[in-house]
Amino acid sequence: MNRRNHRAVGRRCLAVVSAALAAALAATGPAAAESDRPGPLVLQKQGSFFVGGQSKSTGPNSDITIDQMYVQFQVPEGAGKHLPVVMLHGCCLSGKTWETTPDGRMGWQEYFVRRHRPAYIPDQVSRARSGFDSTAISQVKAGALPPSALPNVFQASHQVSWTLFRFGPTFGTVFSDEQFPVNAADELYKQMIPDLNALLPAVNPTWTNLAALAKQLGGAVLMGHSESGFFPEQAALIDPAGIRGVITIETAFCVTNLTPQQLAVFRDVPVLVVFGDHLADVPAFASLWTASFDTCNQFVQQVNAAGGDAQMLSLPAVGVFGNSHMMMQDKNNLEVADLILKWIDEHVGGR
Amino acid sequence: MNRRNHRAVGRRCLAVVSAALAAALAATGPAAAESDRPGPLVLQKQGSFFVGGQSKSTGPNSDITIDQMYVQFQVPEGAGKHLPVVMLHGCCLSGKTWETTPDGRMGWQEYFVRRHRPAYIPDQVSRARSGFDSTAISQVKAGALPPSALPNVFQASHQVSWTLFRFGPTFGTVFSDEQFPVNAADELYKQMIPDLNALLPAVNPTWTNLAALAKQLGGAVLMGHSESGFFPEQAALIDPAGIRGVITIETAFCVTNLTPQQLAVFRDVPVLVVFGDHLADVPAFASLWTASFDTCNQFVQQVNAAGGDAQMLSLPAVGVFGNSHMMMQDKNNLEVADLILKWIDEHVGGR
Repeated sequence: MNRRNHRAVGRRCLAVVSAALAAALAATGPAAAESDRPGPLVLQKQGSFFVGGQSKSTGPNSDITIDQMYVQFQVPEGAGKHLPVVMLHGCCLSGKTWETTPDGRMGWQEYFVRRHRPAYIPDQVSRARSGFDSTAISQVKAGALPPSALPNVFQASHQVSWTLFRFGPTFGTVFSDEQFPVNAADELYKQMIPDLNALLPAVNPTWTNLAALAKQLGGAVLMGHSESGFFPEQAALIDPAGIRGVITIETAFCVTNLTPQQLAVFRDVPVLVVFGDHLADVPAFASLWTASFDTCNQFVQQVNAAGGDAQMLSLPAVGVFGNSHMMMQDKNNLEVADLILKWIDEHVGGR
Repeated sequence: MNRRNHRAVGRRCLAVVSAALAAALAATGPAAAESDRPGPLVLQKQGSFFVGGQSKSTGPNSDITIDQMYVQFQVPEGAGKHLPVVMLHGCCLSGKTWETTPDGRMGWQEYFVRRHRPAYIPDQVSRARSGFDSTAISQVKAGALPPSALPNVFQASHQVSWTLFRFGPTFGTVFSDEQFPVNAADELYKQMIPDLNALLPAVNPTWTNLAALAKQLGGAVLMGHSESGFFPEQAALIDPAGIRGVITIETAFCVTNLTPQQLAVFRDVPVLVVFGDHLADVPAFASLWTASFDTCNQFVQQVNAAGGDAQMLSLPAVGVFGNSHMMMQDKNNLEVADLILKWIDEHVGGR
């Protein structure tokens, strides 16, 4: 689906309703979700651990550990030969992204486990339970470094989240077919936490840690979202040994200047790229999303031309409309998950 | 057990062995833990949500949410009338505290669930998946505030962790009966993340959120550790309605100047305080831990004098030796958990 078609689809949905009306009409709330709850969840094992990390001296007899990546996991009974799926969150978010949705429904973490997939949920290096290197903050406070040495911290506002994530064309307005549960937007805002990735070196330790994790698991599918959308590919470029497939959900841009040698990595690593709806319909971010879509189409073509197996899954192109950037939390999130599970089974397979 | 007795017990263990020797002798590693793994874990439900939170304007059309508390939970099949247990981590740590131990064994989160207790694991406000208010950092970087406006960030070094947590009398040395799996200390260091509690107001939002969580759950036992050791009591002082019992594990100090009116709150809220071993045996922190022990004994006496049910559980006094400050990760962590579960059943009861 090219940009022009996307715009045509977009026009269909330009009618907007107010957030208040959408809230009143919303059919799905925590109470409804509760009664729909499926049977017991049976786990073979669960737990958490860290990947990577290195010591850093911050003074005499004062060492800390930085660059470690926290990973929480569950392995269901009956996983059989299904490959583990690693789900990595985006900017200003944490592993919470994949858990209970803002309106209290099941997230992809549990759904994948119930579909017999071991699920591994990291917090990015420098975020949430992975911690961050706070040395610069302490040194600036102590006067040892100038304020310019502080990291740029990105914390997405309510206004940016609503529009960048395409809940409606402007803050507080909603697309008529919007799938995000906008009545629970306040609960999404609680997930938005400071992003300190500006502290990290050019080769993001999260990429290296993802490659190490996949190898440690003896094979895994890596899935990234938004800021981390292309991290699975970056991990494969560092070390593809354990990476059996990569899934990119709405990254800000796919890298389109890989060398032939780099593209050759994807001969053995199937690629899925997923985009939702309304890419061109939010004036403030239309050029971002349509450019993102274009670069990813280009990347898909490059991988296929190099002998790989890459696929662009544009949800509206397959008749699934109204999905936001936060499709793993949208009202039809399990329908979208099913499309991804189908791709894994058909293009990656099992152990 | 008073301070003098504690010192007498301490002398028993002053013989130390090197960390390298301890590592070589360590009986419990990830591989051993794996083979001991019990049967499937059967959950009635699991998920995550936030408690509290408020909007803050950071400029025109730029609102963020602060003071929210992330909570992850699991409810086992067969929970019956067992009360939920809320486990709150300490300084420079996150909810990871209660999960898989540094050497790969089962943590208290899963153990309590397997013992039929719904377990709720928050990240403190301003930590990990709860996020923090980064406004001051951005304003200092922009020159709008002086460097002195930056928060004091506390990140515990390896050296401080080893000694403050009482793995041995000095960094790298180990008590002969030490229960912490020191061969996996590097994995503990990965859990140590920046503590930004200096950003919080005098009435810590975590206290308020804990009280609200207990009420929302229709009754719960609150357990705090170290920095958060007295948070369950602070939550009860704000609103005891949902708080059925409080457990304080090795707080830095118990508050001993509560008014009669405040102490009366604990007539209906049983109190358990737990301390490990070697309180007086680490020269750098002996006065801290013995003073902490003394203040908590005083608090226990005050609650009992006011008609409450408070108990001091000094592990060495009941024949359980060598426990560190991180007793939930110690090699005998499930033995310690059993003592706490027994206290809940005998002093708090069920729904």
